[in-house]
Amino acid sequence: MIFDGRLKLAGDRPKPVPANGEALIRITMAGICNTDMEITKGYLGFRGIIGHEFTGVVEAENARARKFVGKRVVGEINCGCGVCSLCLRGLEKHCPRRTTIGILGRDGAFAEYMTLPAGNLHEIPEGLSDGEAVFTEPLAAAFEILEQVRIGPSDRVLVLGDGKLGILCALTLKLTGAQLTLAGKHAAKLAIARDQGVPVILTKNLPARGKYDVVVEATGSARAFETAMKLTRPRGVIVLKSTVAHGTPIDLAPLVIDEITVVGSRCGPFEPALKALAQGLVDVRPLVSAVFPPEDAKKAFAAARKRDTLKVLLDFGKG
Amino acid sequence: MIFDGRLKLAGDRPKPVPANGEALIRITMAGICNTDMEITKGYLGFRGIIGHEFTGVVEAENARARKFVGKRVVGEINCGCGVCSLCLRGLEKHCPRRTTIGILGRDGAFAEYMTLPAGNLHEIPEGLSDGEAVFTEPLAAAFEILEQVRIGPSDRVLVLGDGKLGILCALTLKLTGAQLTLAGKHAAKLAIARDQGVPVILTKNLPARGKYDVVVEATGSARAFETAMKLTRPRGVIVLKSTVAHGTPIDLAPLVIDEITVVGSRCGPFEPALKALAQGLVDVRPLVSAVFPPEDAKKAFAAARKRDTLKVLLDFGKG
Repeated sequence: MIFDGRLKLAGDRPKPVPANGEALIRITMAGICNTDMEITKGYLGFRGIIGHEFTGVVEAENARARKFVGKRVVGEINCGCGVCSLCLRGLEKHCPRRTTIGILGRDGAFAEYMTLPAGNLHEIPEGLSDGEAVFTEPLAAAFEILEQVRIGPSDRVLVLGDGKLGILCALTLKLTGAQLTLAGKHAAKLAIARDQGVPVILTKNLPARGKYDVVVEATGSARAFETAMKLTRPRGVIVLKSTVAHGTPIDLAPLVIDEITVVGSRCGPFEPALKALAQGLVDVRPLVSAVFPPEDAKKAFAAARKRDTLKVLLDFGKG
Repeated sequence: MIFDGRLKLAGDRPKPVPANGEALIRITMAGICNTDMEITKGYLGFRGIIGHEFTGVVEAENARARKFVGKRVVGEINCGCGVCSLCLRGLEKHCPRRTTIGILGRDGAFAEYMTLPAGNLHEIPEGLSDGEAVFTEPLAAAFEILEQVRIGPSDRVLVLGDGKLGILCALTLKLTGAQLTLAGKHAAKLAIARDQGVPVILTKNLPARGKYDVVVEATGSARAFETAMKLTRPRGVIVLKSTVAHGTPIDLAPLVIDEITVVGSRCGPFEPALKALAQGLVDVRPLVSAVFPPEDAKKAFAAARKRDTLKVLLDFGKG
């Protein structure tokens, strides 16, 4: 499935040839993310095979990746240059010369085969299904919050947004024991988090001003940032997850007056996400709205765009 | 000098009567701040005696303030309720029921007399002139950055804005030994910081993108926030000092992509500011553009509004 200005099935293509240090991965499962849908609207000007949430089996590799051959894997999506100061500190995702599968300068996962540096791979623990492991990447983005902000059991934490990312953030932050609330507009989506022990509230029932220590903005709506500012206590923290702010007018004065800290938060660590899935600490299965075979990828995208849909998967089969 | 929709000299008024816990202060010197000028444009809807930067001598007090009688003082500008959780943590400036002299619900310092809770007062060290001590409040706002963000000698720090606040921030951050640069549009203003050892650059000569670990946004211009985002390295920190963002369209996506932290920063601690002034670590004298007697307060405001002016003082005399 390629995007070249419009989305289409590309038909048969030759197997990609792994570069030095890369593994050849046969894709088994892939997930459609909101970023994929943003890309089809022109986000970042990407052209090529889209998709960055996947599971696969390693078919060929170079010496560095021998241990992965025949193994089921997930893979981190950013590929750094490996030599700049950011890469040397483990921050490949911030490398100014990075590529990102299906997002920036590198073919993605909505295909039979993909290549990826062996250093990006993580083996899927036995007993964890592909349909769950495919959530590793978005769940890692939720775990990134805990890499950046100290959240303790006494903290009052609000997650804004009951989309896939908001629910995954709530299920992850629940593990801290914090006084957590998930706010959203869809009772059915909120119920998924509620069923796993997260207190939920409809956005319309939120107070006009709030006293939350930490507010996670995961709505995907630019206006929600102003809501987040109103609901955060003085000296509190807003974790900003949404990237879809198209130059919306925002008055940042409340940040100064209330001395609020805003933490931009993107991709996160795969290992804790895989571990949480394997240990059953986070149950992602209720987030799957539909599963399509790859030849129905266009139908899958149409389904993913619907308001009541959460995660749509493409099942390439283990074949 | 009162603001009741327009700025005027109110003429003779009775001495204010200190409430329980308050001191009566005879004002000796006062400074005009950009916030005062914002108030005359309607900021926060304030009505009353304006002014919040002052030095004075305590004339009368209650039991809690006996030690200040006859002493020269400066005073913290926020008055909290004293009983809420924020006040009990020393965060009176964030008390939801606070008043702030000359800004919010409380008469200010552009008058012969003012009252203020004794707990807000700090004695001016011997040898420090009123003309320097009157900078304690804005200098404390610069020291607030060091209360909020760890800045080390290896950090590359950029201060944006060569107004009063930008220069005071630069002179304060210089004390950390950081790799500091002050950027502004006015060579003459930049020279004041340069003469005290701060490397300076004209804003037009800044690179399009930068690698600063910390960028302090102190321009008073809403557009400068986008410049700050471009000049901050991935995982870096923007300290936001400017409050004059009138709902400007801003795309916050760079905060997420580069995982930048934004720290809103307002009023700060008086003691370190007074100490730095008394020890000569920060020389504020070159920032004084003009001194007027209080009867020329309107002329003083006209002078303060001019583009090339830095601090304008009102000298009430020691009489």
